[in-house]
Amino acid sequence: MGASVLSSFSGCSKSQFEDKNIITANNSSKVNFKLATSWPKHFPIMGEAVLKFAERVREVSSGSIEIQVFGKDELLPALSVFDGASTGAIDIFHSGPYYWKGKSLSISIFGGVPFGMTPDEGLSWFKYGGGMDLWREIYDRYNLYPMLGGNTGPQMGGWFRKEVNTLNDLKGLKMRIPGLGGQVMAKLGVTVQTLPGGEIFQALQTGAIDAAEWVGPYDDEKLGLNKVAKYYYYPGWWEPGATLELQINLNDWNKLPPEYQVAISTATYESNLTMLARYDSLNNEALQRLLSSGTQVRDYSTEILTAAQKASFALYDEFASQDADFKAIYQQWLEFRKRIYAWHKLNEGSFTNFVYSQF
Amino acid sequence: MGASVLSSFSGCSKSQFEDKNIITANNSSKVNFKLATSWPKHFPIMGEAVLKFAERVREVSSGSIEIQVFGKDELLPALSVFDGASTGAIDIFHSGPYYWKGKSLSISIFGGVPFGMTPDEGLSWFKYGGGMDLWREIYDRYNLYPMLGGNTGPQMGGWFRKEVNTLNDLKGLKMRIPGLGGQVMAKLGVTVQTLPGGEIFQALQTGAIDAAEWVGPYDDEKLGLNKVAKYYYYPGWWEPGATLELQINLNDWNKLPPEYQVAISTATYESNLTMLARYDSLNNEALQRLLSSGTQVRDYSTEILTAAQKASFALYDEFASQDADFKAIYQQWLEFRKRIYAWHKLNEGSFTNFVYSQF
Repeated sequence: MGASVLSSFSGCSKSQFEDKNIITANNSSKVNFKLATSWPKHFPIMGEAVLKFAERVREVSSGSIEIQVFGKDELLPALSVFDGASTGAIDIFHSGPYYWKGKSLSISIFGGVPFGMTPDEGLSWFKYGGGMDLWREIYDRYNLYPMLGGNTGPQMGGWFRKEVNTLNDLKGLKMRIPGLGGQVMAKLGVTVQTLPGGEIFQALQTGAIDAAEWVGPYDDEKLGLNKVAKYYYYPGWWEPGATLELQINLNDWNKLPPEYQVAISTATYESNLTMLARYDSLNNEALQRLLSSGTQVRDYSTEILTAAQKASFALYDEFASQDADFKAIYQQWLEFRKRIYAWHKLNEGSFTNFVYSQF
Repeated sequence: MGASVLSSFSGCSKSQFEDKNIITANNSSKVNFKLATSWPKHFPIMGEAVLKFAERVREVSSGSIEIQVFGKDELLPALSVFDGASTGAIDIFHSGPYYWKGKSLSISIFGGVPFGMTPDEGLSWFKYGGGMDLWREIYDRYNLYPMLGGNTGPQMGGWFRKEVNTLNDLKGLKMRIPGLGGQVMAKLGVTVQTLPGGEIFQALQTGAIDAAEWVGPYDDEKLGLNKVAKYYYYPGWWEPGATLELQINLNDWNKLPPEYQVAISTATYESNLTMLARYDSLNNEALQRLLSSGTQVRDYSTEILTAAQKASFALYDEFASQDADFKAIYQQWLEFRKRIYAWHKLNEGSFTNFVYSQF
């Protein structure tokens, strides 16, 4: 079922509003949208941000747009939301582009890739570097209109039973790591597992796996990953800026009056800004708790990072040879990445290098 | 003159809307606000973001809130906007908290200080680390209600005729650098100048000054600073996250119906996100042009950075001993900074260290 566009409001003539020079939504229709997410409705931060988005849309549209939020499995399974919104069974979904690689390899770029861009770099690419236009072009084929759905910030690289320093240490290691990060790890000899979040704790505890990545200190602590044993905790390189998405059925979007489109798109900015700010706030506190309770933080060695980067770009070259869209978007993205890396290395990196070295 | 709150709309009874369960702004009044900025009305990025903010507020309020934007000197001189909004001569201003240190030393913290936090770190502090509550408490005394007004990203550290490597190289150097950065440089022996932007080019060209800082590649190029000579260009440490502000007269704010407050505050998120994204986009392109045309990029030496950091924190200790508000806010801010530095060092710094090193 698509958008329920109810009867037009006619309790009061249009001219009464025009006399006051107040252009309002009241001579338009009320809209009811169904939004499904790939996570539980009240999933910390991510799920909460979606509920806040729906609330804000209702408020800034003076109640004219009502978005009803459904968590994973309430209307659709987590990975059916794309098709659901594409066909009009639902109107909007909140998920991550990294889930839809099977539809088009090119989609993975929009979600952030190993050795990709940080959140601010990604936002600059989407908004002013051509990224959003490319995203719209691709999703147009699936009858979807893309909007930014928030960012987790650079995710952590997981918990390891033993320190990994060399490429040899990775060989045969059984690690829970999904997505492109998993594909790269597989190239480095890791035996990749793709357990759902809820099964990670037990798999680590029983020794069924040797390592696992999830999100970051706040979420990892919630799964109890720090309590399985005194694991080594590594920063990540496969999700340096995991971009989430709010996708709306294109017919729904095109039928909306411009002021309704503005209400929805304006509300997405709040989700984007506050989601990252909240992750950063809860993660910085959780990290202190982890460190106090004995978590050992380690860095990936240059040997591993160099090999992982090489394997990542080899993977992108494979994708480019298989998919013309991936190739075109990747080349454009790569040029932007090069320029913004040079800029952030200079203005932000030189500063943070110095100040972080003291912490 | 304060807000012009016009007559209530009464062309159609409230119950007609309630019947349709549409809560609208139409049974409230139309509001006209005057907003003055500390920069020219169409100042690139910063000024444009304010115009976009006003447009968005009008749109999401269905035309009920009209914000008329006035550039510097159109209604008030650049540095009179604070008092203007405080007294109600205007309703809103857009400026930078670093201008108001003379009112209360504590205000400088909200604008970002030397060796302070990056944009994302600052946002996390404001939104979830207690920063916004402290800002509201301070500005409440001036009859102002603070909202975030955007961020430039870490600003550059200026153009130098000669390389500066040691503290000795800074002694007696005549440099255009205002604000706290200037106070710190003065402690390091620099002869500080505070020319307006429009006079920097000539002062550098004639040799009246030896060095000057402005904003970043895009804005610096507009002033022609790269054309004076083959100057050395350094990254900065005094404005790692220059936060701008949108301040609204507190009486105006309190009189607004909740749905109008939401319309205004929601629109600020777009300004915040897009301003930084645009700076990052235009700066990364401008940097490439500067490098191609011969600009020499250098880093401050550890000797200078270490001394500058020490001088900065000595300055904050002086402020803390003079001002109880500064002391309280500074201590809270410092705790947050410590935790978020540790977190970003781990998740983002470890990643960017590796990838930026190749650019």
